[in-house]
Amino acid sequence: MPDSVCTAKHLHHVCIAVKDIRDTVKFYQDTFGIGNVNVQEVTDQKVLAALVKIGGTELEFIQPTDPTSGVARFIEQRGEGVHHICFEVDHLADTLKALDAKGVQLIDKAPRKGLAGMIAFMHPRSTRGVLIELVDSPAH
Amino acid sequence: MPDSVCTAKHLHHVCIAVKDIRDTVKFYQDTFGIGNVNVQEVTDQKVLAALVKIGGTELEFIQPTDPTSGVARFIEQRGEGVHHICFEVDHLADTLKALDAKGVQLIDKAPRKGLAGMIAFMHPRSTRGVLIELVDSPAH
Repeated sequence: MPDSVCTAKHLHHVCIAVKDIRDTVKFYQDTFGIGNVNVQEVTDQKVLAALVKIGGTELEFIQPTDPTSGVARFIEQRGEGVHHICFEVDHLADTLKALDAKGVQLIDKAPRKGLAGMIAFMHPRSTRGVLIELVDSPAH
Repeated sequence: MPDSVCTAKHLHHVCIAVKDIRDTVKFYQDTFGIGNVNVQEVTDQKVLAALVKIGGTELEFIQPTDPTSGVARFIEQRGEGVHHICFEVDHLADTLKALDAKGVQLIDKAPRKGLAGMIAFMHPRSTRGVLIELVDSPAH
């Protein structure tokens, strides 16, 4: 067993924040051959979002639907680009407790429902500038 | 056959630019259970670099060794964080010609040797803010 708080088993997805999700998806389809994409509205996060497979992992695209949302502010401050990366872990609720106990800064101290399943975000201050989402592994 | 310039077969790695690669690797080992990491100096890019497996893909960490390097300027302007993502494609040289012919902006118009193999970078202006590296598939 590794002597670590958790094991990041898999890079679940890389999320890219953009101004126009449909234009972006068309560019990634025309350029990189990504498959068909189902754009969904995630109302509580005020984004349009889409996940698309690329090999064994996924790309997520998000477009803010409200200029006051976190994603809109991200784009305003930093421009379009990679917004976060997501690791799959086992036992997310326990992992969050263990991370918190070690002093790792969390945005979500308990799992919540996200596009990819039950998820939580870690604060970039603790992860060397990377906004990291954790997604709970499917039950096993 | 997809009607696209190329097919991104696989997310080869996600690269994170940091100020202190050894401190970062220790944090990712202690927190996420990533394996042992071999930090190498890549002199022509003026970085220390390390690749580590995470599921079927990899994380790359880079630390600038010279304050005038591109990576040092990236960290100065944007802070530590995700620097680029890398897709694996077939026939990289031909892909670059086809991308160029379609007006996609490239940093490298021909493959060059990188840490992951023969690689080329696309310009974030064309890819909705994402610095994308392409790596040639192993010969088949």
